[in-house]
Amino acid sequence: MTEAPSSPARRSVRVDLGDRSYDILIGPGLIAAAGAEISSRMKGRRVAVITDEHVAPIYLEPFMRSLAGGGIQAVSLVLPAGEKTKSFPHLMDVCDSVLGARIERNDAVVALGGGVIGDLTGFAAGIVRRGSRFIQVPTSLLAQVDSSVGGKTGINSRHGKNLIGVFHQPDLVLADTDVLDTLSPREFAAGYAEVAKYGLIDKPEFFAWLEKNWRDIFAGGDARIEAIATSCQAKADVVAADERENGLRALLNLGHTFGHALEAATEYDSRRLVHGEGVSIGMVLAHQFSARMNLASPDDARRVEAHLGEVGLPISMAQIPGSLPPAETLMDAIAQDKKVKSGKLTFILTRGIGQSFVADDVPPSEVLAFLKDKYPK
Amino acid sequence: MTEAPSSPARRSVRVDLGDRSYDILIGPGLIAAAGAEISSRMKGRRVAVITDEHVAPIYLEPFMRSLAGGGIQAVSLVLPAGEKTKSFPHLMDVCDSVLGARIERNDAVVALGGGVIGDLTGFAAGIVRRGSRFIQVPTSLLAQVDSSVGGKTGINSRHGKNLIGVFHQPDLVLADTDVLDTLSPREFAAGYAEVAKYGLIDKPEFFAWLEKNWRDIFAGGDARIEAIATSCQAKADVVAADERENGLRALLNLGHTFGHALEAATEYDSRRLVHGEGVSIGMVLAHQFSARMNLASPDDARRVEAHLGEVGLPISMAQIPGSLPPAETLMDAIAQDKKVKSGKLTFILTRGIGQSFVADDVPPSEVLAFLKDKYPK
Ligand SMILES: NC(=O)c1ccc[n+]([C@@H]2O[C@H](COP(=O)([O-])OP(=O)(O)OC[C@H]3O[C@@H](n4cnc5c(N)ncnc54)[C@H](O)[C@@H]3O)[C@@H](O)[C@H]2O)c1
Ligand SMILES: NC(=O)c1ccc[n+]([C@@H]2O[C@H](COP(=O)([O-])OP(=O)(O)OC[C@H]3O[C@@H](n4cnc5c(N)ncnc54)[C@H](O)[C@@H]3O)[C@@H](O)[C@H]2O)c1
Ligand SMILES: [Zn+2]
Ligand SMILES: [Zn+2]
Repeated sequence: MTEAPSSPARRSVRVDLGDRSYDILIGPGLIAAAGAEISSRMKGRRVAVITDEHVAPIYLEPFMRSLAGGGIQAVSLVLPAGEKTKSFPHLMDVCDSVLGARIERNDAVVALGGGVIGDLTGFAAGIVRRGSRFIQVPTSLLAQVDSSVGGKTGINSRHGKNLIGVFHQPDLVLADTDVLDTLSPREFAAGYAEVAKYGLIDKPEFFAWLEKNWRDIFAGGDARIEAIATSCQAKADVVAADERENGLRALLNLGHTFGHALEAATEYDSRRLVHGEGVSIGMVLAHQFSARMNLASPDDARRVEAHLGEVGLPISMAQIPGSLPPAETLMDAIAQDKKVKSGKLTFILTRGIGQSFVADDVPPSEVLAFLKDKYPK
Repeated sequence: MTEAPSSPARRSVRVDLGDRSYDILIGPGLIAAAGAEISSRMKGRRVAVITDEHVAPIYLEPFMRSLAGGGIQAVSLVLPAGEKTKSFPHLMDVCDSVLGARIERNDAVVALGGGVIGDLTGFAAGIVRRGSRFIQVPTSLLAQVDSSVGGKTGINSRHGKNLIGVFHQPDLVLADTDVLDTLSPREFAAGYAEVAKYGLIDKPEFFAWLEKNWRDIFAGGDARIEAIATSCQAKADVVAADERENGLRALLNLGHTFGHALEAATEYDSRRLVHGEGVSIGMVLAHQFSARMNLASPDDARRVEAHLGEVGLPISMAQIPGSLPPAETLMDAIAQDKKVKSGKLTFILTRGIGQSFVADDVPPSEVLAFLKDKYPK
């Protein structure tokens, strides 16, 4: 089987991690090309494909066909869609199914789906035989620009989101940009929040470009590929510099401390809030809180609000359907988030668009007062 | 609080792993000294102690008192005893309890118990917040000389033993040699199988010393401390040379491929077979199989049999109570064990006492024929 000629539009980003380095391929047609891409890079000839019930009806069959075309034997497991799937019972399902498929050291576990499937499957790959090969085939925008890159994997606990997991890098990431056309507009926008995040962290020009070009990105084509490749490159750079989140990598959590607390407060109910929406509101809150602490201009917070609102993302807690628990409960979730250092909170704050930084001495009382202020009345 | 003067009998072994190096303290009275030892080495002031229902009634209260004396706040979780506790539901219990105790980055998770508690708790520590500090307080001989050292953690799957886990090194190991006095003679002997293993791998003089001194080791005192320290040093050396079991470390699996298959065949029912007993039979089988393959003299196999039999360990499959499944089923378990490379089996074989080596091209058919031969009629 010869490899299909790579599309002129296809981009490739390398994540530089010594002997754990890997490529992210980004472009149209990568589901159809997956069998060839995987078989040319992998010694083993078996994979276990984990996916969810939304993705399976559209992409599982073409994906399995592509694998078969590359001479790869595959079994598949279809899980329920949604954040609740990132749980111990499903982790056990995936491990059982991978072990049952007799995946050996050179074979691989494949995640075909959004961030939920990627995080869960990556975790399973990280613990089956204390670490198995792992391929990400992200199908949501969020997964393509964020969760599939960098090796953070995990599940949720009743004590909070992503509190249980491992670092386990993939061996390959295949981001087929065509598949995003079947994503709901709401999910596309949610993923877009993470794209905007890279601009807000340290790329003011990229944020300005997004403000102008976001409609093209939503429509598809070259702007979309460009935005995804820029995002992956941004994430790859941070991951290469700080694989295990001892410092710099924490910047990727811009908007996430608030966001995770809101996800917990809405009980991970995707009808009320999905991850990217929490991040959108969280990024607005982070900019507003920075302004309140006199670190940044309120104009920057307003610019962030305006852009995220324009693309259709929620930008305030009041937009979340249903009622939220008291601000104190939110505060508890924030304190239980991983970014805690002996009583003081670690937050990503900003000095303006593209000027985020890690603040590790944020007084919880200030955050609580701010939250109460912003709380839907 | 000043540290108690260290007993003259106390030994210390360092596991050299760069910034993941740690000490193993071995000697009497370490439960009482735990609070002081831990607080002098740890920045955090909270721990979660995981133990089992056999160990808790004897040692939990003195251990908690010792922690309190060292100024350390502790919560505890008591789990059922036995191999079946190494499972997903209990892993989830431990993670929940650690997160519920709000253990932060500088705090620690403590395993107080045998290898089951150590493997399960170490796994939980490895995945809570993608890695938390971990202290081993091994209370069985097996845990003191083997499972508490080296960072292999995990649980069992219905597809086999220890198939799911992570590498997560402890920050400290406290092996109180007094606590072994309450271990049942059967469990003591089972742990002794792993002590003998270090001799059989590459220390023929140590094996000869054991043949002479084993009664003193069983009785307690200096020979026991000496045997444990030598075993820990042997394991520490192998682990330092090959942390992730890419080569040399596989030698520690002497007797384990057969042993794990026998444990699976007896459904991890400790009334029929415990780990060390499986290893004892497995080491005899490994020596017999090596003789059959003309690698070693049958006299060496007979010497291993004689010594392990003398200390009260089972040395043949016929000694396992109840009936075993067909040899083919055992063979399936062997093939599903982690040590598989594209069809060929990786086994630890030997050229004689203390001359073990990794053979990675063992034909499954030879093993099956050998097993059928040795099978209880
Ligand atoms: N590991 C990391 O570094 C990291 C980073 C960011 C987010 N995350 C995690 O990612 C998760 C969110 O990811 P997500 O937004 O992709 O969620 P998701 O996996 O739930 O996907 C969103 C929805 O879109 C559906 N879907 C996915 N691809 C589709 C397609 N091509 N066509 C139609 N439907 C499709 C899914 O079935 C699901 O219903 C969260 O759990 C979050 O914690 C992880
Ligand atoms: N991680 C590794 O590198 C490694 C190496 C070898 C074995 N192991 C694992 O270790 C486990 C076996 O360890 P184990 O033999 O300690 O089993 P175990 O933890 O089940 O302990 C054996 C029995 O002794 C009891 N016990 C422990 N300490 C006691 C004491 N001081 N007084 C009275 N009773 C006591 C326990 O409650 C249990 O009933 C297996 O699961 C095996 O896979 C792991
Ligand atoms: Zn995110
Ligand atoms: Zn063992």
